[in-house]
Amino acid sequence: MTHSQRRIRLSAELRSFRAGSAGADALDAMLVTDLNNVRYLSGFTGSNAALLIFADDRPPVLATDGRYRTQAAQQAPDLEVVIERACGKYLVARAASDGVGRLGFEGHVVTVDAHATLTRELDDRPGTTLVRASGLVETLREVKDDGEVALLRLACEAADAALADLVERGGLRPGRTEKEVRRELESLVLDHGADGISFETIVATGANSAIPHHRPTDAVLASGDFVKIDFGALVAGYHSDMTRTFVLGAAAQWQREIYDLVATAQRAGRKALVPGIVLGAVDTASRQVIADAGYGETFSHGLGHGVGLQIHEAPGINATAAGTLRAGSAVTVEPGVYLPGRGGVRIEDTLVVQNDEKRTPELLTRFPKELQIL
Amino acid sequence: MTHSQRRIRLSAELRSFRAGSAGADALDAMLVTDLNNVRYLSGFTGSNAALLIFADDRPPVLATDGRYRTQAAQQAPDLEVVIERACGKYLVARAASDGVGRLGFEGHVVTVDAHATLTRELDDRPGTTLVRASGLVETLREVKDDGEVALLRLACEAADAALADLVERGGLRPGRTEKEVRRELESLVLDHGADGISFETIVATGANSAIPHHRPTDAVLASGDFVKIDFGALVAGYHSDMTRTFVLGAAAQWQREIYDLVATAQRAGRKALVPGIVLGAVDTASRQVIADAGYGETFSHGLGHGVGLQIHEAPGINATAAGTLRAGSAVTVEPGVYLPGRGGVRIEDTLVVQNDEKRTPELLTRFPKELQIL
Repeated sequence: MTHSQRRIRLSAELRSFRAGSAGADALDAMLVTDLNNVRYLSGFTGSNAALLIFADDRPPVLATDGRYRTQAAQQAPDLEVVIERACGKYLVARAASDGVGRLGFEGHVVTVDAHATLTRELDDRPGTTLVRASGLVETLREVKDDGEVALLRLACEAADAALADLVERGGLRPGRTEKEVRRELESLVLDHGADGISFETIVATGANSAIPHHRPTDAVLASGDFVKIDFGALVAGYHSDMTRTFVLGAAAQWQREIYDLVATAQRAGRKALVPGIVLGAVDTASRQVIADAGYGETFSHGLGHGVGLQIHEAPGINATAAGTLRAGSAVTVEPGVYLPGRGGVRIEDTLVVQNDEKRTPELLTRFPKELQIL
Repeated sequence: MTHSQRRIRLSAELRSFRAGSAGADALDAMLVTDLNNVRYLSGFTGSNAALLIFADDRPPVLATDGRYRTQAAQQAPDLEVVIERACGKYLVARAASDGVGRLGFEGHVVTVDAHATLTRELDDRPGTTLVRASGLVETLREVKDDGEVALLRLACEAADAALADLVERGGLRPGRTEKEVRRELESLVLDHGADGISFETIVATGANSAIPHHRPTDAVLASGDFVKIDFGALVAGYHSDMTRTFVLGAAAQWQREIYDLVATAQRAGRKALVPGIVLGAVDTASRQVIADAGYGETFSHGLGHGVGLQIHEAPGINATAAGTLRAGSAVTVEPGVYLPGRGGVRIEDTLVVQNDEKRTPELLTRFPKELQIL
């Protein structure tokens, strides 16, 4: 899908916008200030930008500052680009001049101070009103188009290859520190073509593996340890997300048990990824397996989340999520069991929901999930 | 200064707070939601937190979620810690229960949607009002205490050592790519004890050095190139920031000229760092040198910025900055001359303003600034 097609979809959303239960609440235009949303709708990646999208077929306007004159022309050749440091303020005035009545803005992004500045711009333009219209673009972004899925595939492939490389060269041997493993893995992610890493890499060995979001320390990998690795690659703005847990030396009985349990729960979660299912039911499908085995209390986080231009985006998959899963969503499935002081297991994949409920979701992170004893 | 002493200073600010020109505007308490500000005032570094600070001597309250129970107890042992996922919402209700009348909040951080949620919490508590009080903590943070300066020194030392190491091992030889240099330098920053890098490293060779914020590419370093490197180290949350520009092989006359010009302008900027000077005058002191030589148009950004828990923080040093420079501020001085299609030079240091105007600022980034031909 082109950026222009995405903008056309947003314009349709503006025309059908309803603030509450009342009647004609349609928006005449939308001020987009979230930089990921600007990127999604225009292709522009500068660090200061805003976009004005009309509900009708008037051409959109991209505002950015002087540092990005060349870059904006290259990345968004189909857009009018205005060079103006105070991007949002300029576009609000521009919308008013263009006769916009109801102007949507991103209430989940715009701060109270920024909103006051935008409102002042309309002090002597009573015909234009700012209307909270939060999450419109994020809802569009929830369903990935083919180009986005292709980039997610590349990101996940780079991560797969990096982890395979790390294991093959003995990167997870006893005696190394968590920090050393992190550095080697991050370096391999870049070697395999990623633009960067997609979030702070987690390497957690032994008892540290029981901490869900452990930061790498100088702790030394030892025989008998669980080693939990949660990391990702970034390709053209798209994030991969994968967790694998290994055992060093030999696996104890308790380790095999919780590994198998988490693997079973993860399989159940993946199987539940069908279009139309309530998000909370996906969480339950996986969580129930762990609860039935008596470990429910130890699985202390949600099952998964959307992935795309952000490492965490819509939809959130947790026990209380009321929305439904949409075909084309890219999400993680990542149950875990954590035994404080002993160790923990998490297994996480990134997958794309298919549009036929009989088809299994596309698995993007393909590194094996069988228990590997290194 | 201890976290407790910092909080006592904030309490004093609340008591003397004036929203406008009117009389008794003092705040009874402040809801701190910016995570850097929470860290500054409490030592807690979790990713979900808020802090309630009273104007009187009632003890502050730190709210965070269940993931951080142990960490909060370790990092903020002197504080009451409440486990509550919706931190801000909880603390607003708590403030109302505690009889707070005027409750300050960070209008530059709280979004319009979050503000609506906080306001709803007060619907049936008319005695408590939310009051915009933006930037109070940032203003305190502008002046670094001894502990902060010590951490900034460590961060700058790690960066100095990494760059020296890179040059010594021939890391900047013709034939390497910008991306390779970035990776080696970032790896060396970690080798020299940093927790991470402080922002995306810039390595820009040849004509790319004329782009102020160039991202490393596969462009190959060649004899005769300027190589501009802008990078930093992160130590215990504190950022260093330094730019150096080298020449490979032999320096042409035009390269020597603009290098000397930028070095002279940078010296003038550093010399202007005296307590009490108007910030705009610091910018002018340096910029005038470049303008007088006829290159004014090519110096397209501000002279510098504060550095601390954020890579860019108060005070901003640019032509229109109206505030004054305070003793104890840690700031960068980074003039540049950029000749599109040919190359550019930027020289940047991080320094701490002294409290005696006769004393030169403390130079934290000590890597040499003489033109180095490699």
